Amino acid sequence: MKAIVMYGAGDVRLETVPDAQIVNPTDAVVRVVQACICGSDLHPYHDMKPSSAGKLMGHEFIGVVEDIGREVSTLSKGDFVIAPFVWSDGTCDFCREGLQTSCRHGGFWGANGVGGGQAEAVRVPLADGTLVKVGVAEDSALLPSLLTLSDVYGTGYHAASTGRVSPKTTVTVIGDGAVGLMAVLSAKRLGAEQIILMGRHTSRTDLGIEFGATDVVAERGAEGIERVRELTGGDGTHVVLEAVGYLEAYNQALGVVRPGGTISRVGVPQYRDAPVGFAGFFGSNITLTGGIAPVRAYIDELLPDVLDGTVNPGKVFDRTVDLAGVADGYRAMDQRESLKVLVTP
Amino acid sequence: MKAIVMYGAGDVRLETVPDAQIVNPTDAVVRVVQACICGSDLHPYHDMKPSSAGKLMGHEFIGVVEDIGREVSTLSKGDFVIAPFVWSDGTCDFCREGLQTSCRHGGFWGANGVGGGQAEAVRVPLADGTLVKVGVAEDSALLPSLLTLSDVYGTGYHAASTGRVSPKTTVTVIGDGAVGLMAVLSAKRLGAEQIILMGRHTSRTDLGIEFGATDVVAERGAEGIERVRELTGGDGTHVVLEAVGYLEAYNQALGVVRPGGTISRVGVPQYRDAPVGFAGFFGSNITLTGGIAPVRAYIDELLPDVLDGTVNPGKVFDRTVDLAGVADGYRAMDQRESLKVLVTP
Repeated sequence: MKAIVMYGAGDVRLETVPDAQIVNPTDAVVRVVQACICGSDLHPYHDMKPSSAGKLMGHEFIGVVEDIGREVSTLSKGDFVIAPFVWSDGTCDFCREGLQTSCRHGGFWGANGVGGGQAEAVRVPLADGTLVKVGVAEDSALLPSLLTLSDVYGTGYHAASTGRVSPKTTVTVIGDGAVGLMAVLSAKRLGAEQIILMGRHTSRTDLGIEFGATDVVAERGAEGIERVRELTGGDGTHVVLEAVGYLEAYNQALGVVRPGGTISRVGVPQYRDAPVGFAGFFGSNITLTGGIAPVRAYIDELLPDVLDGTVNPGKVFDRTVDLAGVADGYRAMDQRESLKVLVTP
Repeated sequence: MKAIVMYGAGDVRLETVPDAQIVNPTDAVVRVVQACICGSDLHPYHDMKPSSAGKLMGHEFIGVVEDIGREVSTLSKGDFVIAPFVWSDGTCDFCREGLQTSCRHGGFWGANGVGGGQAEAVRVPLADGTLVKVGVAEDSALLPSLLTLSDVYGTGYHAASTGRVSPKTTVTVIGDGAVGLMAVLSAKRLGAEQIILMGRHTSRTDLGIEFGATDVVAERGAEGIERVRELTGGDGTHVVLEAVGYLEAYNQALGVVRPGGTISRVGVPQYRDAPVGFAGFFGSNITLTGGIAPVRAYIDELLPDVLDGTVNPGKVFDRTVDLAGVADGYRAMDQRESLKVLVTP
């Protein structure tokens, strides 16, 4: 079958790899109907060391169950499913607590003998725990929105949820990428009345306004902080959802969070150490939360509004490619020509 | 009147200073009945640069109202009062939210023309907002416990409260100083069934056991982390209350916190940057909270159990000195001869 393999920074290739097939009795094989490229895929696209083995790419996909192992009990061939970006058993204590990213038996796509979503098909370990069945047709117009439940919508919602966004909180979202825009949509869902989106790309921030942003701040750094403070009576917002991952964005978050407030990060941090000392953090009783999103935990909650069209998170996709076009899709996202690229194998 | 002034590291003197008196109509003057030395007073005791003006010391005191300004409406001469370690107006939005440490008009003792608690008397700004009246006699045996409400008990409780300790959470407390022991007492109050106290001083950890610790781990660093993990099935605890303030303690907290768990800091951080990257933090969905404690917010809640003797936090005091003995009290606390020193001016 065909799959996308990254061999180093900027080196994305379409390759022929062994067909996905059942290995363990708890596996399913899913034929990928839609996948996509993630902002986090751009990190190895920038800095992956050359590797002759390469890395199977993609961790967001929806598709049709083609085969199941003999111990799979909740799925049948032909089921349409959403795959979260982490596979998990669904039964351990962490999974039951809604922290499937810490599942005692789970793991990531594209590692340890498990393939990626940017492929014709994927072997899904622990299929009963991992996959979420949805009653839609393969040609449903809802598919792009359902695909966001595999990562970006759940990730944005994790930020808002762990940040305890509510009708009583004001919110700043840092980053106008797909996750930032999903954080806006999530903050709106949780009732925030003021949602300030910090981002510089008008086409993206326009979509952010459609998703619920009440204000857009295009400036960054000290100037951006000053603008947010002006919009909030000088204090900053109760919650800051940080959807970038660079230290500059973290420092920006410190600058716009209100004393007693919360910074919730879902941008994968590209740094180890950051300021958490007295000035601007401990002395102001700032809480730092968020983390890698257990999106599996949120699918049941977010699905109904997607299915009935109340929300349309699939609007974050602004380009569609087939597998042969994925390498160019990476380039387009990296060069900000594209917000998020949908892949139809 | 007499007051303690620090002129540099290790240089603590009893001096004659101008009498405390009403300056603003919202002031009160409190005659100090009991004060104490704080673990945080040891930071300038270690590293304060020589100063000819010196710094008035002490931020924990209880006493009797001797005089009030004409705009003070809730207090009368003769009232017995507890002073929190920050003065605050009690009316601004932050105060109403229970974040008096960010009061829009408040401040710290021993700064900007306001004296410290290690003195015969103190001018208390914004007295209506700051002071809490308690109906006890000057010779009550409850006084040392009431004194802990001015800082250490409220600070330990802030750690447990912002860490969301509950009957469903396991807890590690790092540090067997007075705040660490108060964090144990607070975790017990909030229903935690497993409370692991990390500390090396048997006399202190014994008091910790009396306050509710179920396990004591004397080891530090990697060995201490390993011991806590053994006690928790390998995972660490849901909540870690960090009551030390050094980077080593922070790293220890990272080592003993369960995935999805919370580190709540009340030890004043003696560092600016600390690890909050993917490994062991973001990837495990760790939350970092706590901060400088708005103890004023907790006095009403904690007071009844102190007054009726349900708890006896005053047991943290193991030495009493008069003002002439304060310099030696600093020395004794610094050399760990004493856990916490009570001062009776």
